[in-house]
Amino acid sequence: MPFDHLVGQSSKAEAVSKDALTYARTNASRFVEELKVLLRIPSISTDPKHAGDVRLAAEFIAAELRRIGMEKVRLIETNTPGRPGGHPLVYAEYLNAPLVNGSPVPTVLVYGHYDVQPPDPLNEWRSPPFEPTEREGNLYARGAVDDKGQMWMHVKALEALFSANGGRLPVNIRILIEGEEEVGGEGIATFVRTHSEQLAADVVLLSDSSMFAPDLPTLCVGLRGMIYTEIEARGAHGDLHSGRYGGVAPNPFIGLAKIIAKLEDEDGKILIPGFYDKVAMPTAEELASWKELPFDETDFRESEVGSTELIGEQGYSVLERTWSRPTLDVHGMPGGFTGLGAKTVIPARAIAKVSMRLVPDQTAAEAFAMYKKYVESICPKGIAVEVRLIHAGEAIVVSTDNPYVRAATSAMHDVFGKDTVFVRSGGSIPIVGEFTRELGIPSILMGFGLPDDNLHAPNEKFHLRNFQRGIESIILFLSKLDAARDYAG
Amino acid sequence: MPFDHLVGQSSKAEAVSKDALTYARTNASRFVEELKVLLRIPSISTDPKHAGDVRLAAEFIAAELRRIGMEKVRLIETNTPGRPGGHPLVYAEYLNAPLVNGSPVPTVLVYGHYDVQPPDPLNEWRSPPFEPTEREGNLYARGAVDDKGQMWMHVKALEALFSANGGRLPVNIRILIEGEEEVGGEGIATFVRTHSEQLAADVVLLSDSSMFAPDLPTLCVGLRGMIYTEIEARGAHGDLHSGRYGGVAPNPFIGLAKIIAKLEDEDGKILIPGFYDKVAMPTAEELASWKELPFDETDFRESEVGSTELIGEQGYSVLERTWSRPTLDVHGMPGGFTGLGAKTVIPARAIAKVSMRLVPDQTAAEAFAMYKKYVESICPKGIAVEVRLIHAGEAIVVSTDNPYVRAATSAMHDVFGKDTVFVRSGGSIPIVGEFTRELGIPSILMGFGLPDDNLHAPNEKFHLRNFQRGIESIILFLSKLDAARDYAG
Repeated sequence: MPFDHLVGQSSKAEAVSKDALTYARTNASRFVEELKVLLRIPSISTDPKHAGDVRLAAEFIAAELRRIGMEKVRLIETNTPGRPGGHPLVYAEYLNAPLVNGSPVPTVLVYGHYDVQPPDPLNEWRSPPFEPTEREGNLYARGAVDDKGQMWMHVKALEALFSANGGRLPVNIRILIEGEEEVGGEGIATFVRTHSEQLAADVVLLSDSSMFAPDLPTLCVGLRGMIYTEIEARGAHGDLHSGRYGGVAPNPFIGLAKIIAKLEDEDGKILIPGFYDKVAMPTAEELASWKELPFDETDFRESEVGSTELIGEQGYSVLERTWSRPTLDVHGMPGGFTGLGAKTVIPARAIAKVSMRLVPDQTAAEAFAMYKKYVESICPKGIAVEVRLIHAGEAIVVSTDNPYVRAATSAMHDVFGKDTVFVRSGGSIPIVGEFTRELGIPSILMGFGLPDDNLHAPNEKFHLRNFQRGIESIILFLSKLDAARDYAG
Repeated sequence: MPFDHLVGQSSKAEAVSKDALTYARTNASRFVEELKVLLRIPSISTDPKHAGDVRLAAEFIAAELRRIGMEKVRLIETNTPGRPGGHPLVYAEYLNAPLVNGSPVPTVLVYGHYDVQPPDPLNEWRSPPFEPTEREGNLYARGAVDDKGQMWMHVKALEALFSANGGRLPVNIRILIEGEEEVGGEGIATFVRTHSEQLAADVVLLSDSSMFAPDLPTLCVGLRGMIYTEIEARGAHGDLHSGRYGGVAPNPFIGLAKIIAKLEDEDGKILIPGFYDKVAMPTAEELASWKELPFDETDFRESEVGSTELIGEQGYSVLERTWSRPTLDVHGMPGGFTGLGAKTVIPARAIAKVSMRLVPDQTAAEAFAMYKKYVESICPKGIAVEVRLIHAGEAIVVSTDNPYVRAATSAMHDVFGKDTVFVRSGGSIPIVGEFTRELGIPSILMGFGLPDDNLHAPNEKFHLRNFQRGIESIILFLSKLDAARDYAG
């Protein structure tokens, strides 16, 4: 570990970070207005109609990175033959940070994504998803927190540091921002695998996760993996009338229902043979620390979920079920007649969009192979199924025992006045696993979202106080890495 | 039975029907062009956006009925408080048919419908659904055969008889055409129940069914009933992210899948307790006659269904499974994410559109009550369901032992040169049950569609030769009812 014992600040570094914080506070409202411009761009990566918007968002970020002083700013194309709609990466670097006591300072690889989830159902938004609107201290828009808003914190922290430090940064920075996170991040994964030497860095820094509770500084140290799939069921060669053919024609929806019903039992235990074989339990220490977190299951159910009861595997807590156990969900079942009223069609085909969240030490490839084989084996008679992998990402856990984690917890202590908690996330950020494997460096997942920020749902928001806290935490984190040379040298 | 032994024709009646047939043949291509105008009107009764088109279709038919000589032509509104989108009935009458041998001639109540099913999936149509197109002797359009085309045969047969008979008809006619058949026909049912005296007639005549095989004259003597329902499943109070909440939040699609999987067994036997209690078997004679029909199961599977195998209850033939056994289908499952690609949402709600076909002596009300109770009883934990009835219609069987059936078979023998076969239909025409119950008169279901006419599916068509045969069969049927007085007197 080349930059051990990093936490602390020299007096010069302290002055720079103080000036940068002042700059960030003075320009706070401008930062929000700039973010709103980015949020107005409907950069929905899954929808080919929005490919132009996705590129526009990339161009907007690249222009801003150039303006604040980053170097070698460019878009990196990710199109590969046979894969439709690769969205560009935004790359920039600043590698001229002054030596400290004659030694180089760390290089931080900042990651973020500028693409967003589709906004539907549109009618449930209180203000339009691509018209950013402030209400009660929050900024509402698709992408407000996931991840445009959190990514923008890094751009603005760098701007503040450039300004406070005479046009220089106290550490070396590479920044790599993708436009396909919400569709599996295949483009960036390929780039990282083939260009690891061009991304040489000491630590990855990203903000695409949440705080465990309001005002509680949080580092995320584990992410679930996932496989997102489609099962297409086909029965008759064309749509048929349920009067004439009901009783003899296979019904693809009934076929899918019978398959889905056999994917998990009443308690949410997944029934795919072999699926749990490689599931690793968290350590006893980690499980014990989760019990210390401020978590009230009744409150969680009532305020966040709102269902009559929570479901899931027997014998595991809510945090275990969402952080360290694999799960399965169905997201939609396109096909047939979905309009108002009645149409008596037996559709020729129907699709189920099914995903599974994976945990260490499952792998996406093995999980998909088991799932596909099982689905094909339970396909009802008269129905033909095709099981397709839409995208995949691996689960990871990251180390908490390194100087970057200590710099991060110190920075957040300065901002929040509280000790940081270590949590996992049930979500997936596929690229973090790639960084770990391909670059061999730790990741710092310093997130400033809130549990009720409505990620991937209507009325996504970012609490503006946390946007500011995030900028300040990043300024301090980067400043402490610089000053850390005093300790390590 | 007031008009017994009707079959036969006087020499005057014979001359009239001959002139009417000549008129129908001379004007055949004009009749088709007029039908095309009607087919261009997208009178989709289930879609509120098309309410204006539905009314336009009604107005078009009313204008034509007036032009050919029908009397008291009017639209009857069916709006009732609390029920959205009632579409009008078209009513007309001609009650001045001359006495035959001093006795009144029969009054025939002609029924049809001018509304159509939605045309989706649009991309599977070879020509646009509302641009009628002739190919290989067929007319392709939504509603070509179901039922605008078959309804138009009656209008044109009446026009031919008016023309051949000096502006008079040989029998009394009431005509009642609805615009809600595809959405359950609640408006006409209410009207018939409350105005049975205004509809006094001796027999109902309709063409909304098919011939059993090409060139085989067919009378339909049984229809299945149906209940069309929606199951709405609700889990969380809003859409949730499957990363953060996968493993604890109830998934409405999985809930619906588990419910649907328990609605019928692997062989299509419906598992609702009590569901089969009142199911009546056809008579031994009827079953024997079905075995005589030209039916090849392999050919049916390959050419009409196209699935790898047929499904359905063990121990029943294809004709039994589709004509005399109740069945269950799922037509669509709206909700969640149905676009291209991936969205990792756990939707707050999802819907399954589920219908059941019923047979004598089941009733729609009893079947729905059993189904609703059962669905509620098997609802998985964490999920709340609402089971809604969208529309319902009763199953019927009609008598084959009356003079109207004999007139019909005689008329079709003249046109086709073959004996008529008696079949049932797996489909539902809810109003036929109402006519039977409320008016106490027999129905003649004289259909001229073909098994491969793609009812309710893309590329619906009407074989134009059968359109012409239908007009001629109706002319002869009505003429034989007149002449029948010679026999009955």
